Amino acid sequence: MTLKDLLNKKDRFAANAGAQITEIREGYARAEMVVTKEHLNGGGVCQGGALFTLADLAFAAITNSRGHLSFGIESNIVFSKSGKLGDLLIAEATETIPHHKLPYCEVKIRNQQGELICSFTGIAYSKSEGSLPIDGLM
Amino acid sequence: MTLKDLLNKKDRFAANAGAQITEIREGYARAEMVVTKEHLNGGGVCQGGALFTLADLAFAAITNSRGHLSFGIESNIVFSKSGKLGDLLIAEATETIPHHKLPYCEVKIRNQQGELICSFTGIAYSKSEGSLPIDGLM
Amino acid sequence: MTLKDLLNKKDRFAANAGAQITEIREGYARAEMVVTKEHLNGGGVCQGGALFTLADLAFAAITNSRGHLSFGIESNIVFSKSGKLGDLLIAEATETIPHHKLPYCEVKIRNQQGELICSFTGIAYSKSEGSLPIDGLM
Amino acid sequence: MTLKDLLNKKDRFAANAGAQITEIREGYARAEMVVTKEHLNGGGVCQGGALFTLADLAFAAITNSRGHLSFGIESNIVFSKSGKLGDLLIAEATETIPHHKLPYCEVKIRNQQGELICSFTGIAYSKSEGSLPIDGLM
Repeated sequence: MTLKDLLNKKDRFAANAGAQITEIREGYARAEMVVTKEHLNGGGVCQGGALFTLADLAFAAITNSRGHLSFGIESNIVFSKSGKLGDLLIAEATETIPHHKLPYCEVKIRNQQGELICSFTGIAYSKSEGSLPIDGLM
Repeated sequence: MTLKDLLNKKDRFAANAGAQITEIREGYARAEMVVTKEHLNGGGVCQGGALFTLADLAFAAITNSRGHLSFGIESNIVFSKSGKLGDLLIAEATETIPHHKLPYCEVKIRNQQGELICSFTGIAYSKSEGSLPIDGLM
Repeated sequence: MTLKDLLNKKDRFAANAGAQITEIREGYARAEMVVTKEHLNGGGVCQGGALFTLADLAFAAITNSRGHLSFGIESNIVFSKSGKLGDLLIAEATETIPHHKLPYCEVKIRNQQGELICSFTGIAYSKSEGSLPIDGLM
Repeated sequence: MTLKDLLNKKDRFAANAGAQITEIREGYARAEMVVTKEHLNGGGVCQGGALFTLADLAFAAITNSRGHLSFGIESNIVFSKSGKLGDLLIAEATETIPHHKLPYCEVKIRNQQGELICSFTGIAYSKSEGSLPIDGLM
C-alpha cells in the first residue's frame, strides 16, 4: 500500500470530512476538499476544524514522506478568508525545516481562485527507528 | 435561541464530529466528545483535526459569550497524549486576555481520567458593532 | 554552580537585558526585569524582543530544572498590554506538559499590579543523555 | 524622518541588540545583526530573545510599511539551527496575509551561508485611523 492510499483510507476522520490527498513527493504534499453543507459552522462558512483537518492531512503526508513514522506535536493556524459552500480548497504543504527528527512544515490552503484561506505551520516528531508499512508514496 | 443551542445546532461540522457544548458562562465554556471509530486517523488514534474541532467549539462558545459576534483568527495547538477509542474528551475554555476586540483564550482537552490530551490557545476578533441573535447563553 | 547562577551569569543576552531569574523549583520558575529606557521600542513601550527574552529566560530555567540539557524549539507569544517605563515585570513559568523529551510550558508576564502583559508558550527538546554541569537549582 | 530611520533610531532595544533595518518596501523588509559575545546564552549560541528581536524588527518594518501605525499582537517562532559567534544573520519579512487591519507576515532568519536559523510568523494590529509621523520608507 502506498502512503497516499494509507492516509486516504485509514484516516477515517479526514475521509469523513471529504479531505483527500492528491499528491505526495518527498518535501511536498497536496490535499483537496470541496466545501459542502456538512462543513459549515454557525456562521455559515467552512468550520475552522474542517480547515485544520485538511491542512493536517497534507501535513501528515509530507512529514511521513521520508518513510519514518511521524506525528504532529504542534500546529499554528491563521485564518484569512472564509471557505464558502462549493469552494474547492487546495492545501499545499512544503518543508521549511527538513529536520530528520523534528521537521517543520508550512501548509497553505487556497480556494479555486487562488485566494489564501488559511496558513498552517506545524512541527512533527519523526521516530528514527520506526518505519511505515508502505511500498511507495503515490 | 441560546448561544449553546445555536452552536450545537448550527455548527454542522462540529455536530457531525460528535462535539457538543455542555456549559457556557461568561469567561468559561466546556465541550465534550466521545472518541468513536469515525474519529481515528491512520495511526488508530483520535485525529488532530477532531481534537481541533472540539477545542474550536469550546473556543467559539467562550469568545461569543459576551454577545458580540466573534470568530477565530489564530490558534496554536500542542498535542501531548493520544485520544483513544471510547475516551470521553472534555474541553474546557478559559479567558487569558478578556480583551473586548481581540480576546485570547486557552482550551485544555482532557480525557475521562483527567489526563491532558492537548492544549489549545486562540485569538478571536470580536465585532463591537455586531450582536448575536441569541437570548441567553445556556 | 547552581542552575540559577549558570543562567544568570552565562546568558549574556538576558543579563544585558536586565532579566534575572529569582526562583527555580522543579516545575516552576520566575524571572524579573525592570523596564528602563534601554528596553523601549519606537512606540515608547517595552519592545517585544525584551518581553520575549524575559519569558525565554524563565522558560530555560523551567525546562532545564530536571537536570537534562534542554533548549527551546518553538514559542508562541501573545501581547496584551504594554510594559511601561519603570514597570517591574515578573515572568512565571509552569509546566503544562512535563514530558521527558518534549516538555511544553507556559509563561505569563505580569507587571507590579498583577496585570497580564504577555502570555508565552513553548516547547523544548530535552536531551535524555545530556546532563547539565550544575549542583542544584538555586 | 523615514520609517527606516524611525525604527533604527527609536527602537532602543533593537539598536542595543545590534539589529538594524537595511531595506523596507511595501510588502518586504530586511533587518541584519552580527552575532557578538553579547548575544550568547548559557549554551554559547545566540539567545532566542536576540533572534526574536531581530525578527520582530523586520516584522515592525513590514507591518508599518503602509503608513498605518501597527503593533504586533501574536508571534510564533521555531528555531532550526544555532546562530554562532560572528554569524551575520539576515531577517527577511514577507506578507502572507496583507490584511488592512490584521496583517499576517512571515520572517525567515538565515545566516551568511543561507542556512535557515529560525522561522517567525506574526499577526499585527493596524490602526486604520492612526498614521505614522514619517515621510517615506527608506
